[in-house]
Amino acid sequence: VRKNLILIKLGGSVITDKGKPFTARRSVILRLGREIGAARGGLKNTDLVIAHGSGSFGHTVADKYQTQLGISSSINEKIRQRKIQGFAEVARAAREINRIVISEFLRVGLPAVSFAPLSFTYDGKTSEQFIKPVAQALEIGLLPVTYGDVVMAAKNGFCIYSGEKTLNLLARNFVKKYRKVRIIEAGDTDGVYDAGGKTIPLITPKNFSGFAKLITKSDTTDVTGGMLHKVEEALELAKKLGIETVIINGTVLNNLKRVINGEEVVLTIVRS
Amino acid sequence: VRKNLILIKLGGSVITDKGKPFTARRSVILRLGREIGAARGGLKNTDLVIAHGSGSFGHTVADKYQTQLGISSSINEKIRQRKIQGFAEVARAAREINRIVISEFLRVGLPAVSFAPLSFTYDGKTSEQFIKPVAQALEIGLLPVTYGDVVMAAKNGFCIYSGEKTLNLLARNFVKKYRKVRIIEAGDTDGVYDAGGKTIPLITPKNFSGFAKLITKSDTTDVTGGMLHKVEEALELAKKLGIETVIINGTVLNNLKRVINGEEVVLTIVRS
Repeated sequence: VRKNLILIKLGGSVITDKGKPFTARRSVILRLGREIGAARGGLKNTDLVIAHGSGSFGHTVADKYQTQLGISSSINEKIRQRKIQGFAEVARAAREINRIVISEFLRVGLPAVSFAPLSFTYDGKTSEQFIKPVAQALEIGLLPVTYGDVVMAAKNGFCIYSGEKTLNLLARNFVKKYRKVRIIEAGDTDGVYDAGGKTIPLITPKNFSGFAKLITKSDTTDVTGGMLHKVEEALELAKKLGIETVIINGTVLNNLKRVINGEEVVLTIVRS
Repeated sequence: VRKNLILIKLGGSVITDKGKPFTARRSVILRLGREIGAARGGLKNTDLVIAHGSGSFGHTVADKYQTQLGISSSINEKIRQRKIQGFAEVARAAREINRIVISEFLRVGLPAVSFAPLSFTYDGKTSEQFIKPVAQALEIGLLPVTYGDVVMAAKNGFCIYSGEKTLNLLARNFVKKYRKVRIIEAGDTDGVYDAGGKTIPLITPKNFSGFAKLITKSDTTDVTGGMLHKVEEALELAKKLGIETVIINGTVLNNLKRVINGEEVVLTIVRS
């Protein structure tokens, strides 16, 4: 019997205070860990993978050094050295929030292990080889946790690489291996809002063009793109591979647990 | 002009107190970072890669859960769960000492970025794809830092994977790309001792059989093998690829800086 796979994205706006540099919401992370643990105990034949954003960790340092721009070849040596040091600082910050997530998850008994995008990405692309260690970790019964990072890129030396990108790569590569692949995105809104701030319950390739203009932009700085970008990525996975994405509010108690269990919560479903 | 490559292994016995669980020698790490920084400034056409052991971090937790044995298929579910949780705990400990090394190196202005073995290793083997991100990091001017870790393995689920293993893989794969590849191993002894505690200055495939019995075993527990194992690995690289390894005492001030610069220190050279 083939298993199911649930890929869970914990937004940087949920696990950190985006308004305060380097501020993790430890109690929220702990609660989300407990909800994943509770749901995981009751799941049969289902593997879980977690990805999280870096919120006020990575983004704060990336802003300072403008890391998202990479290194232009035209800059002088002093600025170049500063950009390189900046890259290393952003990588450290991204790992720091990951360390906190892993630490809280271990506290609640989740066998969480980190998979570091910088270690398996070059030319701005994640190698498909990366799937193998994650697959082997799942076979053993571990809980892989990946995250938003900075990575090597052919153009401009390096780039920002969101947790979503890694998650989407996993989705694309695992879709044949598993019976069903689902993505849960836990952000700080009740799904996707229309212009009036009301949750759009269902987005499909058919109705998307009508919603695109209404979808409000993320209200805090996010170098990895706002809600519209998330929806477009989800639609792509839905159209090409039949993968369903649900967008929920991860700041609401038990929302994550309930949606893993298939219970009803306020959400937006993106599917074909 | 092809560059040179120096691969530096910082022993777990140097950067941690092996007698005290989870005790990093921060001032030693900081000093070694300064020495690498000072030597690096004067080097021309030479790339550096660092690997370090996990000393009293990884080994302490690995001992507790007997992680080096992997998971036997015959054990019951409760013990199995404990082993899996133990694996995640060892992985966390290995990352923790790496975090401290990266943090001290960043303090002295080294653009240190972590490469995580667990993220690119499966079936107990490191994928050659792993070389690409490291190579790209070196091209940009970053300082890659890898470490002793636990990784996925086909047999028994998982295994311990020493920093040396990753370093040797880099040596083997980079040997054609670089003009010359050198390995520096910084431990807590003045090179390799004979039975009388005197440093053996030169070990080659020719004289090794005479020394093998004299080489004293490491006096603290080390799941990754003692000095004899190190020498055998170094001889293998020397014979097959002409790579020279020098074994120095990293606890002695300026030893590392001097040996990077090619100055004289008490050491053991292993070469063909």
